[in-house]
Amino acid sequence: MENFVFQNPTKLIFGKGMIGQLAKEIPAGKRVLVTFGGGSVRKNGVYDQVKEALKDFETIEFWGIEANPKIETLRKAIQLGKEKKVDFLLAVGGGSVIDGSKLISAGILYDGDAWDLVLKGSEEKTLPLGAILTLPATGSEMNRGAVISRLETAEKYAFYSNYPVFSILDPTVTYTLPPYQVACGIADTFVHVMEQYMTTVGQSRLMDRWSEGIIHTLIEIAPEILRRQDHYELMAEFMLCATMGLNGFVALGVRQDWATHMIGHELTALHGLTHGATLAIVLPGLWRTLKQKKMGKLVQFGERIWQITQGSEEERAEATIQKTEAFFKSLGLPTRLSEAGIGESTILEIEKRFNERKVAFGEDQDVTGTVARQILENCR
Amino acid sequence: MENFVFQNPTKLIFGKGMIGQLAKEIPAGKRVLVTFGGGSVRKNGVYDQVKEALKDFETIEFWGIEANPKIETLRKAIQLGKEKKVDFLLAVGGGSVIDGSKLISAGILYDGDAWDLVLKGSEEKTLPLGAILTLPATGSEMNRGAVISRLETAEKYAFYSNYPVFSILDPTVTYTLPPYQVACGIADTFVHVMEQYMTTVGQSRLMDRWSEGIIHTLIEIAPEILRRQDHYELMAEFMLCATMGLNGFVALGVRQDWATHMIGHELTALHGLTHGATLAIVLPGLWRTLKQKKMGKLVQFGERIWQITQGSEEERAEATIQKTEAFFKSLGLPTRLSEAGIGESTILEIEKRFNERKVAFGEDQDVTGTVARQILENCR
Repeated sequence: MENFVFQNPTKLIFGKGMIGQLAKEIPAGKRVLVTFGGGSVRKNGVYDQVKEALKDFETIEFWGIEANPKIETLRKAIQLGKEKKVDFLLAVGGGSVIDGSKLISAGILYDGDAWDLVLKGSEEKTLPLGAILTLPATGSEMNRGAVISRLETAEKYAFYSNYPVFSILDPTVTYTLPPYQVACGIADTFVHVMEQYMTTVGQSRLMDRWSEGIIHTLIEIAPEILRRQDHYELMAEFMLCATMGLNGFVALGVRQDWATHMIGHELTALHGLTHGATLAIVLPGLWRTLKQKKMGKLVQFGERIWQITQGSEEERAEATIQKTEAFFKSLGLPTRLSEAGIGESTILEIEKRFNERKVAFGEDQDVTGTVARQILENCR
Repeated sequence: MENFVFQNPTKLIFGKGMIGQLAKEIPAGKRVLVTFGGGSVRKNGVYDQVKEALKDFETIEFWGIEANPKIETLRKAIQLGKEKKVDFLLAVGGGSVIDGSKLISAGILYDGDAWDLVLKGSEEKTLPLGAILTLPATGSEMNRGAVISRLETAEKYAFYSNYPVFSILDPTVTYTLPPYQVACGIADTFVHVMEQYMTTVGQSRLMDRWSEGIIHTLIEIAPEILRRQDHYELMAEFMLCATMGLNGFVALGVRQDWATHMIGHELTALHGLTHGATLAIVLPGLWRTLKQKKMGKLVQFGERIWQITQGSEEERAEATIQKTEAFFKSLGLPTRLSEAGIGESTILEIEKRFNERKVAFGEDQDVTGTVARQILENCR
C-alpha cells in the first residue's frame, strides 16, 4: 500500500425529493449564478423544483453549457457572473455542467482569461459551488476534477479546482434520460474504476474488493436498466456507483492509470465522440497492448468478475478483455474506432500531439505518443 | 435504498513516516493539549515523534486516559485544558484516547459538568481535534462518535461531537501492540461492519459488497496477522479496514442495527470486559435470537463470505452463525458469557437497565430489555 492523504468534504444529499433541501444548503443572502445545460431540466421537472427552492434568493441563470464544456461558452458565464457580482454557484445538470461550473467558479475570481487556468491545470481560489446532478457518469459531483475543451483548437484538458460544497442526487430525475447517455454513463463509471484498479496486484486487498464491488453491481444492474430506466432502486444504485467510482474512496493507497481517459479525451476533442463511448473503445485496446504488464490484475479481474478460471494466464487475460468488450457492446456502445468512423489519420494526430506535448500517461508514465498509437491500432 | 445525507470532512493521513507531517496540520500559534493513554507510546517511539513534530508549539500533556474512558478521568483533563487555555486538542492513542478527547474538546468549552453532555448525547461546540491513531479498532479517528463510561455508576453511553479535523495513521506503530488488543480490534471492526449490514436484504447492492469486502479482507489477513504482527502490508490493510468500517462509507442508504454494541457496552460497564471481546460474545447470540428476522441477510452473508450454499435457509443461517463464531474463536476471543465468568445476575441486570431506561435497539427498535435477555441467554 502506498502512503496517501485523503479528504473529501462534499456533502452528499441523496434520495427522492431531496432537491427540496436545496435552500438550506446555500447561506442566506447569496447571489446565486445557476448554470444549466441544454434544457432537459425544463422537461423533467428539475428546473421548477430549483426555482421553487431558491425563491428567496437572488438568482441569475446561465443556460447552454454543452457536453464537453467549451471555454468559448464558459467565458460568457464568467463574464455574466462578474457583471452580476454573484458569490455562489449552483450547477444543475450532468458532469459537463458541473465541470464547466468548476472553471466558472475559479474564472469569476480571476482577472485574466480562464483558459490560462486550464493550462495551469488547477486553481483553488473559487466561489463556493453546489450541484444538482441529473446524469450519473462523471463523478464530478464529489471530486475536484473537471475536463474543459477548446473548440478553436480541438483541445481537451483536465482541470482541478475545489470539491462542491454539496451535491444533491435524486435518482428519479434520471428516469427520462436518453438511453444512450445512460449507457455512456455506465461505461464511464466502469472505466473510472478500472483506471484506479487495473495496475499492479497486491496493493490493497480492500481497495481491490471495493472496486470489484462497483463493477459487480454495474454488471448486475446494467441489463435491467437497459430494459427499464424508471426503476428507483436500479437508478439509485447506478447513481451511487457513479459517485463512489470517482470520489477517491476506491483510490486509497493504490496507483492509478488514466491513460484510457487521456487518449479518449483526444478522440472527443477531435471527433466530438461522447466521453463514455471513447472509453469503451480505448480500454479494451489498451489492455490488449499492455497485457503483459497488467497480466496479474487482468487475471484477478477475470476470475472475480467474469468467473474465468481456466487456461493459461495469457488465455485468461485475453478472455477477460473479450468479456469486458462484450459488456460494453451489450450497452449498445461502439468498441472499435471503425464503428465511429475513425481511422489512421486520427491515430497519427494523437501520437503527434502526445509527442509534441512531451507527455506520457499510465501508472508508470510510459504511455507515450508511440504507445498511444499502438493502443489505438489495437482499437481498430 | 433509503434517503441519506453524508459528509465526512476528516483528513486522513496514512502511511509509514506520516507522523512527521503533524506540525503542518495544526495552525501556528495554537496551544495544544496532547492527550495520551497509559504510556505505550513511550516505548513504540510515537511519543518522541510527536514531541519532535510539535517542538514549535506550546503543548500541555495529559496522561492516563484509560480503556473505556471514564468521566472521572476526563474531568481532570477538561480542568487542565481550561486552566491552560488550550485551543487545540491532539489525541495520541487508540479509540479510547480519541473518544475521551472528543468529550474533552466539548467539555473545555462547556461551563457545567461534562457528564451533562454525555447524557445529552451530543455537542457540536468543540475545540478542533486531531488524532494520531495507535490501535486500529474503533474507527473513532474518522467519525463523530465516542463512548464514555462512568465508574461510579457502571454506566457507558454513546456521545457524538465533531469529526477529527485530521487523523494520522502509521501502520508501523501497531507492530508492538499486545496481540489480544489486535484480536479485539479485528472483532470490533468485523462487528462494526455487521451492525451496518446484517439487517434487511436488497437495500443496496453496492453497500452490501463494500461491507463484504471489508469482511473478506479481515478473514484473509487475520490468521496471517496472528502469526506475524510486524508485516507492513497486513497491518496497513487492517488499519484501513478498521477506519473504513466505521466512517460512514458502508452505511450509505442502508438501515443499521447496533443492538450488539448496546448490549456489549453493558457487559463492559458491569464487568470491564474489553469492547471487542463483548462483541464476539454478543453477535452470535443476537443472530441466533433474531435468525428469522435476519434470515435473508444471514444466508447471503453465509454464501458470499463462508461459501455456504447447501441446505435449507434455516440450516444455512445456522451454519453462517457457527462459522462466524468459529472465526472469533480463531482470534483467541471468548464467544460465550461463561468463558468470561458472566452469569444470570448480569443478564437480569441488563434487562432491568434497558427496561428502566425505556430503550430499545436494532434496525426496528425492537431489541427491548426482554429481547436483550433472550439474546444474552443465547450467549451462555
